[in-house]
Amino acid sequence: MEYTIREALPEDMSQVLELVHELAVFEKEPNEVEVTVGDLVKDGFSEPKKFRCFVAESWTAIVGMALVYPRYSTWKGPVIHLEDLIITEKMRGSGLGTALLNKVVQYGHSLGVKRISWEVLDWNEPAINFYESKGAKVMRDWDVVQLNERGIEKFLKNMKG
Amino acid sequence: MEYTIREALPEDMSQVLELVHELAVFEKEPNEVEVTVGDLVKDGFSEPKKFRCFVAESWTAIVGMALVYPRYSTWKGPVIHLEDLIITEKMRGSGLGTALLNKVVQYGHSLGVKRISWEVLDWNEPAINFYESKGAKVMRDWDVVQLNERGIEKFLKNMKG
Repeated sequence: MEYTIREALPEDMSQVLELVHELAVFEKEPNEVEVTVGDLVKDGFSEPKKFRCFVAESWTAIVGMALVYPRYSTWKGPVIHLEDLIITEKMRGSGLGTALLNKVVQYGHSLGVKRISWEVLDWNEPAINFYESKGAKVMRDWDVVQLNERGIEKFLKNMKG
Repeated sequence: MEYTIREALPEDMSQVLELVHELAVFEKEPNEVEVTVGDLVKDGFSEPKKFRCFVAESWTAIVGMALVYPRYSTWKGPVIHLEDLIITEKMRGSGLGTALLNKVVQYGHSLGVKRISWEVLDWNEPAINFYESKGAKVMRDWDVVQLNERGIEKFLKNMKG
């Protein structure tokens, strides 16, 4: 299969958002995606850029994407986080995930970071096997915690008494 | 107990780093802290600032800290991440954790973010109970994945074949 891995352009964002939707369906949260194409264009391509995105293009279709941004570790200093690595379902197993992850690791190395992190659903065995085969450590004793929009509102109301 | 919650200053970073070390010992990883006071001063107080830090001060000692920075959700847009919320052991149970978390949630709200995230060790029951009492959701099916410095080097070596 022919494909190119390249930096995303603003005009790729509608296809990138379709991939985000596809993953949200897989993760059983199809209604949680609130971001729009306009948000992605503004947030990714106006200064200060809030993320960097790489895409896998096959002919003229975007069939995969990786989206990364900086984080800060109080142990390791500046690090990067891979928010999403998505390959459209019919293209899985073609080496695209490896090609995009290669790009992300090269990017992290070029920045000199000491860690690249991401998150995975503990029932997503194909993803876990793939990541472990690449030398990543799935830290099963660390859980993600979130206070969502409604939680933030409620928290502030409780604070005021 | 008398205390103040305030924005951290560069001169607080040596005491902030002591708190980071204290937490690393509790998390059974005392040798993983590579960051120096100089790194924290540079990364937190020169533009572009890589994080924002709030401290709890009792008399002239820093007894707690919260360190946050922006992330980007492909579902929710700009969000913030609480990297560390640390209260020195002898001051726990004095309301300092709540006071610092209040500050963080107010900060997130002032930015208009739709999510505040952090991570917790699944055996740290006091922390989990505290976070859940505040309305946060501990997502036990989401695990943290990391490719560390040695993993990055090995990954790149394998890429070259």
